[in-house]
Amino acid sequence: MSESTKYVYLFGGNASEGNAKMKQLLGGKGANLAEMSSIGLPVPPGFTISTEVCDLYYKLNHSYPEGLEQQITTNIEKLEELTGKTFGRGPIPLLLSVRSGAAISMPGMMDTVLNLGLNDETLPALIELTQNERFALDAYRRFLQMFGDVVLGIEHHEFEDALQQVKERYKVKSDTELSVEALKEVIVEYKDVYDQNNTSFPQDARAQLEASINAVFGSWNNPRAKKYREINDIRGLIGTAINVQAMVFGNMGEDSGTGVAFTRNPSDGTNEFYGEYLMNAQGEDVVAGIRTPQPISHLESVDKSCFDELVEVRSKLEKHYLEMQDLEFTIEQGKLYILQTRNGKRTAAAAVRIAVDMMNEGLISEEEAVLRVNPNQLDQLLHPAFDPGAEDRAVILAKGLPASPGAATGQIVFSAHDAETWSDQGKTVILVRVETSPEDIGGMNVASGILTSRGGMTSHAAVVARGMGKCCVAGCPEAVINHDAKTVTFGSTTLSEGDWLSLNGSRGTVYQGEIDTVDPQLTGPFRTIMTLADQYRKLGIRTNADSPQDTAVAIKFGAEGVGLCRTEHMFFEGERIVSMRKMILADNEDERKASLDELLPYQREDFIGIFKALDGKPATIRFLDPPLHEFLPHDKEGQEEMAEATGTSLQHIQDTVAALHEFNPMLGHRGCRLGIFYPEITAMQARAVIEAAYAVPGSKPEIMIPLVGNVKELAHQKKVVLDVYEQLKQEHGKELDHFKIGTMIEVPRAALTADEVATEAEFFSFGTNDLTQMGCGFSRDDSGKFLQRYVELGIYEYDPFQVLDRAGVGELIKLSVVKGRQTRPGIKLGICGEHGGEPSSIEFCHRVGLDYVSCSPYRVPIARLAAAQAAIKNEYGILTR
Amino acid sequence: MSESTKYVYLFGGNASEGNAKMKQLLGGKGANLAEMSSIGLPVPPGFTISTEVCDLYYKLNHSYPEGLEQQITTNIEKLEELTGKTFGRGPIPLLLSVRSGAAISMPGMMDTVLNLGLNDETLPALIELTQNERFALDAYRRFLQMFGDVVLGIEHHEFEDALQQVKERYKVKSDTELSVEALKEVIVEYKDVYDQNNTSFPQDARAQLEASINAVFGSWNNPRAKKYREINDIRGLIGTAINVQAMVFGNMGEDSGTGVAFTRNPSDGTNEFYGEYLMNAQGEDVVAGIRTPQPISHLESVDKSCFDELVEVRSKLEKHYLEMQDLEFTIEQGKLYILQTRNGKRTAAAAVRIAVDMMNEGLISEEEAVLRVNPNQLDQLLHPAFDPGAEDRAVILAKGLPASPGAATGQIVFSAHDAETWSDQGKTVILVRVETSPEDIGGMNVASGILTSRGGMTSHAAVVARGMGKCCVAGCPEAVINHDAKTVTFGSTTLSEGDWLSLNGSRGTVYQGEIDTVDPQLTGPFRTIMTLADQYRKLGIRTNADSPQDTAVAIKFGAEGVGLCRTEHMFFEGERIVSMRKMILADNEDERKASLDELLPYQREDFIGIFKALDGKPATIRFLDPPLHEFLPHDKEGQEEMAEATGTSLQHIQDTVAALHEFNPMLGHRGCRLGIFYPEITAMQARAVIEAAYAVPGSKPEIMIPLVGNVKELAHQKKVVLDVYEQLKQEHGKELDHFKIGTMIEVPRAALTADEVATEAEFFSFGTNDLTQMGCGFSRDDSGKFLQRYVELGIYEYDPFQVLDRAGVGELIKLSVVKGRQTRPGIKLGICGEHGGEPSSIEFCHRVGLDYVSCSPYRVPIARLAAAQAAIKNEYGILTR
Repeated sequence: MSESTKYVYLFGGNASEGNAKMKQLLGGKGANLAEMSSIGLPVPPGFTISTEVCDLYYKLNHSYPEGLEQQITTNIEKLEELTGKTFGRGPIPLLLSVRSGAAISMPGMMDTVLNLGLNDETLPALIELTQNERFALDAYRRFLQMFGDVVLGIEHHEFEDALQQVKERYKVKSDTELSVEALKEVIVEYKDVYDQNNTSFPQDARAQLEASINAVFGSWNNPRAKKYREINDIRGLIGTAINVQAMVFGNMGEDSGTGVAFTRNPSDGTNEFYGEYLMNAQGEDVVAGIRTPQPISHLESVDKSCFDELVEVRSKLEKHYLEMQDLEFTIEQGKLYILQTRNGKRTAAAAVRIAVDMMNEGLISEEEAVLRVNPNQLDQLLHPAFDPGAEDRAVILAKGLPASPGAATGQIVFSAHDAETWSDQGKTVILVRVETSPEDIGGMNVASGILTSRGGMTSHAAVVARGMGKCCVAGCPEAVINHDAKTVTFGSTTLSEGDWLSLNGSRGTVYQGEIDTVDPQLTGPFRTIMTLADQYRKLGIRTNADSPQDTAVAIKFGAEGVGLCRTEHMFFEGERIVSMRKMILADNEDERKASLDELLPYQREDFIGIFKALDGKPATIRFLDPPLHEFLPHDKEGQEEMAEATGTSLQHIQDTVAALHEFNPMLGHRGCRLGIFYPEITAMQARAVIEAAYAVPGSKPEIMIPLVGNVKELAHQKKVVLDVYEQLKQEHGKELDHFKIGTMIEVPRAALTADEVATEAEFFSFGTNDLTQMGCGFSRDDSGKFLQRYVELGIYEYDPFQVLDRAGVGELIKLSVVKGRQTRPGIKLGICGEHGGEPSSIEFCHRVGLDYVSCSPYRVPIARLAAAQAAIKNEYGILTR
Repeated sequence: MSESTKYVYLFGGNASEGNAKMKQLLGGKGANLAEMSSIGLPVPPGFTISTEVCDLYYKLNHSYPEGLEQQITTNIEKLEELTGKTFGRGPIPLLLSVRSGAAISMPGMMDTVLNLGLNDETLPALIELTQNERFALDAYRRFLQMFGDVVLGIEHHEFEDALQQVKERYKVKSDTELSVEALKEVIVEYKDVYDQNNTSFPQDARAQLEASINAVFGSWNNPRAKKYREINDIRGLIGTAINVQAMVFGNMGEDSGTGVAFTRNPSDGTNEFYGEYLMNAQGEDVVAGIRTPQPISHLESVDKSCFDELVEVRSKLEKHYLEMQDLEFTIEQGKLYILQTRNGKRTAAAAVRIAVDMMNEGLISEEEAVLRVNPNQLDQLLHPAFDPGAEDRAVILAKGLPASPGAATGQIVFSAHDAETWSDQGKTVILVRVETSPEDIGGMNVASGILTSRGGMTSHAAVVARGMGKCCVAGCPEAVINHDAKTVTFGSTTLSEGDWLSLNGSRGTVYQGEIDTVDPQLTGPFRTIMTLADQYRKLGIRTNADSPQDTAVAIKFGAEGVGLCRTEHMFFEGERIVSMRKMILADNEDERKASLDELLPYQREDFIGIFKALDGKPATIRFLDPPLHEFLPHDKEGQEEMAEATGTSLQHIQDTVAALHEFNPMLGHRGCRLGIFYPEITAMQARAVIEAAYAVPGSKPEIMIPLVGNVKELAHQKKVVLDVYEQLKQEHGKELDHFKIGTMIEVPRAALTADEVATEAEFFSFGTNDLTQMGCGFSRDDSGKFLQRYVELGIYEYDPFQVLDRAGVGELIKLSVVKGRQTRPGIKLGICGEHGGEPSSIEFCHRVGLDYVSCSPYRVPIARLAAAQAAIKNEYGILTR
């Protein structure tokens, strides 16, 4: 080797030979330590052996390049100088830690050796120094065990067995109860273990170090580490670096201590120094919770100099990292050391406040502030939550899927009908069902929360609840429901109708009894971030809302219109369902039209309510989509009720249900296929929309024909709509200010022929749920089982129903955008599948140039923020994937 | 107008001013008459008023360009000259027909006037001339009626009422019974009708003509004609032409006559003059069947001169049109007129013989001969057929869907099990079922034909029967089956088990009793055409075959390999289904493996049989595809049987069936999703294939992973297969000569990411059934109802399950071809959906550059011919759509 090749990089003493950018060479940890040191933080000094050495170690068949040994020697000398300690000798022995650290973090996968440098000679020095014989003996026995296990490959259990024997001899249970005498015996026993393995513990500290370096480099290719890299698709690394660092001890007496701190309050974001410490303690004492730590502010009175230095470090850290930091420190005999710093985890409320404060403090730009908040985390702020203390004290009955966030508490009911009755009586109810169906919508709407024992994250209950912004725990098999007895049993606890139950829909937990909830706060920094987001985002944000109430909620959250109004939900309430069912049972067009005439006023009123709530914002209204059988009861009891209500025979109803049965209803007689079969349904819906629009001046209706796969389907339905419009135009003597007809793009064929479809469509709205179902061939109702496995196997990175599948479904969207604009350059493009509220999918929508996304009301703020982040990332060229 | 604008074109007298190429100007009929005349055929002379006049007629607000009147006058004079008759006068009155004729045929949509020129003056002359007062009177009263109705717009029923009164007065029922006296009264009554409508019948022939021309041009835009053009998407025509032609009469005495003839035998294709005639008769007399026509050869003895001229015409026609012609002729007082000629319809056998003969006679090229046979028609030749006479005499019981062609006769059985038992006893059976399921495969296989009361052209029965080349009539609701009584009732006829029944699967007819069948003839001209087809086609032809028997049939029909071997069918027979069910019921991997071990030898034997039948030709073997529930019985009886056979509890079976239930099984847990969940299934299948391939030297296995949507699915399954291969390679100490792993492209996502999929796939086979289901969002099991309406409405031109949807599904195929070859230039591309046997779809496959198509054995000859036609059409630039 040439003299000039540098393998070892020093850090510490307010200087360092590396910096944060040298991750590839020094590993993440090494680069970070160098950076901390270079900005003047009091890091315990040490040196990093570069990743190149690891590479050479394997290339040279487990040996090292020339010169390395000398560089290590030189650096140990420097450490001795910086610390005033001596390596392998007294009076103040220098103890070292030897840790791996690759460019990409692989936590726990490789080996670590601590307390290196202890031997029969330095042990007494350490005892003398710390005046704590028990601590020093414990450190030595730990080192013996770790070195034997990690470096020499002695079976871990041999040390454990030896330790166990001593514990039995002294009749103690935990390691901490071992007396000085006992620990001395452990050390003797441990040395015997070495002997029994025909090896010996090296007393020479330099030999300890070299063997440890071998072990750590060797662990780069242990099976566990290789598997980890394979699973996480970590490629292109040449090896791990090794960090050799002076150990410092917070338990060297009352002038020593240890603590953790956040540069701001991670719970609410307040700009205050926040943390806790313990004097004469090691980090693990803080974690173990045996002694109660003190708040950080208290340190000032104990060691003002260290406290002042810490406050200075806090300021230095924020100015350098421009982020709230989570730091670990140790005070060794009055000297402060910073062991680690990293971006601190925080609650959503804290994230928002910190971003806004840092912007106001001039630390970060507006764009950076917008990027600082994780959009998904916002969800926490938009729903009622339990009073945290109360929730901690509550009895957990079971855990299901966190299907729709928020907290709810109420009295148990077992049917949608009961939910409505009880609610009318002013009671707060939790609806408990095996699973829900469209018939339950009314009851779900009045319930404060919903619990189902069956169904996944995309079950009916989950989807509808999210749309309503209502708390829901789904798929909780531990909830065994007895409908006849009106009870639900969780293990040994049986609750009856009227008993109190509480749900945390963000966590999926089910609690016994009533728990106080607190309402969301949408003002202050939250409003600031949202206002900023609106300034930066390019995408419009609409909402999926089927009622005036939902629309009003969404407007409050900042929606700029309705992107998807599902008209079928309007047919389930009260009298409507009877007329709807009569329509389905009709034997001929005249009967069908008579039933549709009954439905018209209901539907018109709904649209009037929505148009009023929108106050001039546009509304995309999707015409009838689900197969007709969804409107019929499938159980005999329901069918009998229906027979009575509609004045039909039970047999006729059963025949109709049978006739409407389909093998694959997803791909069956639904969407515009219904409207083409029964144009009178489309005509009724068109009349309801247009009459409502005339009734509310300034309305902006946009009629959306669902499930179009062929431009001729759209042309057919468009003609039916325009015929109605023509007639109403004549009656009112004027046109509507705004009136568009467009289509969902949810059948792959529509995307593939988007150039043709655009000849008729004034807008496209991507129905990414169905586009995913058909594009990937996954039935949403059935694929949960194998999709979970698929994600585990890495076949799909995410469940494509949760995060838009860019390669497949995204390709169909891209095709549509290009082809659609080719035919009609100004065509309006949006997305109204559930992906419209998912940040990574929103980023994709921004990137392919859609005009807007539409999502459920409670996800509107999330979408606004995600859209702004996408725009900013795009501007700075940092979009993902 | 300038003097030079020519509006009227004369034809007749062995010359003409137009020709066949002038369709746009003269309309189809006008151009054809001009062409016939120009090659010297004795066409009754006439003239064509061009389509430009129609265009001007509308542009000039229902008036005509200057000069037209004079051109008509001039041409009437020429007609008088050519015919020796006089217009509107005696002694030999010239009667004219006035007919519409656009460039594209619109049969029956526009108006026609016949016998024009008759009036009170020419009527006696016609009587004198024909010596047939009744004929002349009838012609006159018809003209009065037609002119009043068509030209003057008098309601049709007014004439009918008048006619009815006279018939009642004379107590006759049909028009032909009206006496001379009665007809005279009709004429008087008809003139009264004109009076009552305040109009009068114009006695002036020229006035008759001008009014008729107005009427015909006017009919171009009648609502019926406009609707017809709309429905048939006929665009870009400027109007209709009008053909004014001298009428000739075959009923002017015993020296007159009329007939129809084919230039070759349309039934078997023999090169002989074939037809029939009647002397002293009009065309309608031949059609009406009151008198029995004479064979054409007999004419020689009656009127040798006309016969010789006809023979000459026959030869002239074939030399000119180079096609077998179907001609109509009339002899008027010893003079032969050819009224019409067109390509003659013919049976499949005739088509094949005529094409080969004409080629051998040097009339047409090899390519032309190949193009002359409609591939779909070949189906007639490949299956047993009824003895035609016997079929005509049989009693039709009902009509269902022609689900699978051929003829079958046998004794009725009502279960697959009975079919097998009876067949074992040497009986020929017809299996009659409400519908069939995979469990019925064995019974279907031994039945001579299958009748189902439910299900469409793509029902299980239909698809499987076509695959087997077995006659099937499906969806016959008139067949009311009583399983308990073992009877089937058609209206008033009830048949019991063992009664004889016959089915014509090409027509969908169900006959009572036994009918003799004749076997197909695949030699002679058929073989010649097939040999030619193989010379010209570029596409390889493989077959979809699941058994050695099917494979052998397909090889006989010219298949070059197996393109799709569906392994799931192999699991239904006998013992296998028990092991299969045990595998499905298994609670853990070990139990599952044990059952799979039982299945292995069966499957290996099947593959050995197929490889032997293929004798070195390649076989693409698709691994398990359908959802597991398809292998379980869904009725309680079957479940009880299964419980016994597998030694499991009924409850466990019912639980398993319930657990496997899916809302949309098409998009559920099937295809490679099974293999990924249970890799041991894939491993067993791989072992069976590879061991069989080692057992039969020269085998060419190609393993196909179904339902891949993501390259990682394929990679996963490929690894399972290759691990097995690796092990067997070691055991046998050598590689297989040929071994490929590829995938179906049947999920849209696979097509969209074909570049990625091709990194793993050595071949793609397009599963166009599923690609259509997912691409268009049509469940094949459910879409029959609305797809029929869609085709009626013209939303799809054809049912996309029958004819490949080029714009949508075709686009996915094109994308895959481009992307697949981009990654792997030599990738082998084929199609194995049912479209692989459909000529228009095959043409598409040729055009996008696939390597082969695969279809059911009985469609192999059709595919060979269609592929050749596609190649030839491509060569000459005449591909469709």
